[in-house]
Amino acid sequence: MGKNLTSRAEDYSKWYNELVVKADLAENSGVRGCMVIKPYGFAIWEKMQAGLDKMFKDTGHQNAYFPIFIPKSYLSKEASHVEGFAKECAVVTHYRLKNAEDGSGIVVDEDAKLEEELIVRPTSETIIWDTYRKWIQSYRDLPLLLNQWANVVRWEMRTRLFLRTAEFLWQEGHTAHATEQEAVKEAEMIMNLYADFVENHMGVPVIKGTKTESERFAGAVETYCIEALMQDGKALQAGTSHFLGQNFAKAFDVKFATKEGKQEHVWATSWGVSTRLMGALIMTHSDDNGLVLPPKLAPIQVVIVPIYKGIEQLEVISEKVLPLVDALKNKGISVKFDDRDTHKPGFKFNEYELKGVPIRLAIGNRDLENGTIEIARRDTLEKESVAIDGVLEKIEALLEAIQINIYQKAKKHQEDHITHVDSYDEFKTLLEEKGGFFAAHWDGSKATEDKIKEETKATIRCIPIHVSQEEGHCMVTGQPSPYRVLFAKAY
Amino acid sequence: MGKNLTSRAEDYSKWYNELVVKADLAENSGVRGCMVIKPYGFAIWEKMQAGLDKMFKDTGHQNAYFPIFIPKSYLSKEASHVEGFAKECAVVTHYRLKNAEDGSGIVVDEDAKLEEELIVRPTSETIIWDTYRKWIQSYRDLPLLLNQWANVVRWEMRTRLFLRTAEFLWQEGHTAHATEQEAVKEAEMIMNLYADFVENHMGVPVIKGTKTESERFAGAVETYCIEALMQDGKALQAGTSHFLGQNFAKAFDVKFATKEGKQEHVWATSWGVSTRLMGALIMTHSDDNGLVLPPKLAPIQVVIVPIYKGIEQLEVISEKVLPLVDALKNKGISVKFDDRDTHKPGFKFNEYELKGVPIRLAIGNRDLENGTIEIARRDTLEKESVAIDGVLEKIEALLEAIQINIYQKAKKHQEDHITHVDSYDEFKTLLEEKGGFFAAHWDGSKATEDKIKEETKATIRCIPIHVSQEEGHCMVTGQPSPYRVLFAKAY
Repeated sequence: MGKNLTSRAEDYSKWYNELVVKADLAENSGVRGCMVIKPYGFAIWEKMQAGLDKMFKDTGHQNAYFPIFIPKSYLSKEASHVEGFAKECAVVTHYRLKNAEDGSGIVVDEDAKLEEELIVRPTSETIIWDTYRKWIQSYRDLPLLLNQWANVVRWEMRTRLFLRTAEFLWQEGHTAHATEQEAVKEAEMIMNLYADFVENHMGVPVIKGTKTESERFAGAVETYCIEALMQDGKALQAGTSHFLGQNFAKAFDVKFATKEGKQEHVWATSWGVSTRLMGALIMTHSDDNGLVLPPKLAPIQVVIVPIYKGIEQLEVISEKVLPLVDALKNKGISVKFDDRDTHKPGFKFNEYELKGVPIRLAIGNRDLENGTIEIARRDTLEKESVAIDGVLEKIEALLEAIQINIYQKAKKHQEDHITHVDSYDEFKTLLEEKGGFFAAHWDGSKATEDKIKEETKATIRCIPIHVSQEEGHCMVTGQPSPYRVLFAKAY
Repeated sequence: MGKNLTSRAEDYSKWYNELVVKADLAENSGVRGCMVIKPYGFAIWEKMQAGLDKMFKDTGHQNAYFPIFIPKSYLSKEASHVEGFAKECAVVTHYRLKNAEDGSGIVVDEDAKLEEELIVRPTSETIIWDTYRKWIQSYRDLPLLLNQWANVVRWEMRTRLFLRTAEFLWQEGHTAHATEQEAVKEAEMIMNLYADFVENHMGVPVIKGTKTESERFAGAVETYCIEALMQDGKALQAGTSHFLGQNFAKAFDVKFATKEGKQEHVWATSWGVSTRLMGALIMTHSDDNGLVLPPKLAPIQVVIVPIYKGIEQLEVISEKVLPLVDALKNKGISVKFDDRDTHKPGFKFNEYELKGVPIRLAIGNRDLENGTIEIARRDTLEKESVAIDGVLEKIEALLEAIQINIYQKAKKHQEDHITHVDSYDEFKTLLEEKGGFFAAHWDGSKATEDKIKEETKATIRCIPIHVSQEEGHCMVTGQPSPYRVLFAKAY
């Protein structure tokens, strides 16, 4: 087909890297580790943003915007946060350039050195809690439920498009509450909101859970997460929601007067999903022919390719197609009628397969005679010829069916790859041979967790929310364990 | 009324600064020159974004995202661009922090010095044209019509909320074309699109024109602009659209094969509006009582304040009000029913006046008896009691009327402040006494332009598009001049 796409079986990692570029989603830029998100990829991200933004607003959150820069000293204020975040950062030290005296170009003006270095935000808890101190005085100011859509920078050494980039786009929610209970409820609600979005918009099944202490966000008391499983058996953390206790309120001295007039520290949450979700989307559904997109996020849901010779045939076809295009648009379905005469139908079929357009219609002379049109679905690659009258209803039903089908397919893959293991040897063997999640007993110690990670590269992805109490013994140490946790290798 | 807002007559500048903070639009952050955009301010910006984004897409543009960092060397590639932009910039020199050896906190890790410094984008022509080189090979790849919504940083020394901040939010369009004519048409189209948005959504009248050479964007062949006039008689540049010729294509070696197979450099435009528009919006319409917002951009279009004693009265009022709330929402009108029992009606009236809510409804016991409701419009502060039946239609009509009225009021102010002057003395006197735009003859030389700027602080805001050819003599040098240009002091 001329796609020149490495197959998943041959090299899953290479397949992914090629697909992201060939499907026009993103590419590397001239700046190490920073990506360019191309229009087609950005259109998918915009649909994700719109879906999430509505869910945030429907649950009472408002958007705001905080500075991109964080004074270096802010990062040190919350003790565990500094360990987690004040490391690989982009550091602004100067605020001016000048022409080199030898005429060789422009150089940093050493006279314009900042008194205190500024860090390009890796996350915004510190600058936001520094602001909240001014905004929160009384219980009447609570809860404060804010979100921002922003770019952040973490100086990753090994980067991969969407999955791990030095700069990425995300949303970060930061909420403040009067009680511990309310903050915990918020963090849990957001985990459920994320799961709802990822499963029902992206068609990606997830497992909800909490992180172990060593996998927790730096500064959090509890980290809730949703974990997805990619086709190669590796897990991908798709979103996290943190209950921060009073850690940031104490570090930034944010207190409020209760109804009874007492001064208390505020309770906090923070939560985020990023352009990493694009990676999850691509890796969950796509195949050796290219992208497979869920209809709810596809920039083009239906493409119509005319098969014709000469302008006259095209005109006759267009006459038949244009009312259908209008009808689809009226239904809110995004449709493209690709009547370019610079490319052949085969080339176009190929291109839209690569780009994951859920439904492709093709119509030629014989169809006109028979009153038919060919309809092909991207997920199963099935084609059929149907009467052009009534194709609108067929398309609507098919879009829904595809959305459900790709979710179910991924769900089956996930379920087939949750393996209960009771011995460490079995764990190590199956981790390599089968991959996926492993439900195993663990003694709860960091030492054991570290040992497993070092020996197998698998980490505890989460302690599932819907874990069944089942006493057992740690697969490594034999110590008692109250329930199984989920291990996997992860992106 | 307890607003404690300085009046415009007393100190326009102070009035503005206070209003931005008191109306909960934005505030200064702990980072010099960087603002926090608060939820209410951000909600207005989101409405601007949505309106503009739709207009960009309706005219064939797509969104994408390019890196926040620009390698220092890129800035030097376009000769005039470097002069304009490679000066006051945030410069990233290091990529890691570490704990200080003396335990005093965190310090920059000197081992993690970048080989080439990275500049936080002040604008993105250079990184985008470096990318376009890879994307554009043939006439089939043109036109390329992209836009990005992004944050940018320019290290301004004297900052003011929204008007001039070190970091600001904006959109920047960057298009590539096969012919000069097409690129010029695009730049003009965008100027008209901006004018349409600013006048019809923001209610701010503008004058369209082109910049003189010395006021042009660094790297542009022609800069189109829209200029607004604030209540204090100072102009504010609300948006610019640049025809860049082949300057960036040449600097970044972007060529395409024509239909005839020839290799030619691509023609370019770039254009942007920023959170500065918030400043224009605030300063154009607001008064000594606070913000006045155009209904099309108001986060809350209608507020309903119940006037009651005790929970029982509130219940009776709510019963009457809630169907109206639903009816307004069904019409797509954003409405808030403020039934807080923590604040008195007078306090609420004050707050919504300060925040510029276009329509306020108030309803009390007597209204219930009479079947009436009080309706107050923010722009004129007029109030009347109307029958509650039929108030929905009244509200719809009033929202439209307010949108038109505030535009017309500002338009009259603008027209009253375009003064034709023929002598430099008259110009200098009226510039101080009356302010506004001055239509005057100018000899076309940079020397004269500089002299006027130095002596009066007025600059040539634009050569209006709809300029009438009218020969005359430069008000300063007496040299011949083909038409009048517009001078003003500006923000």
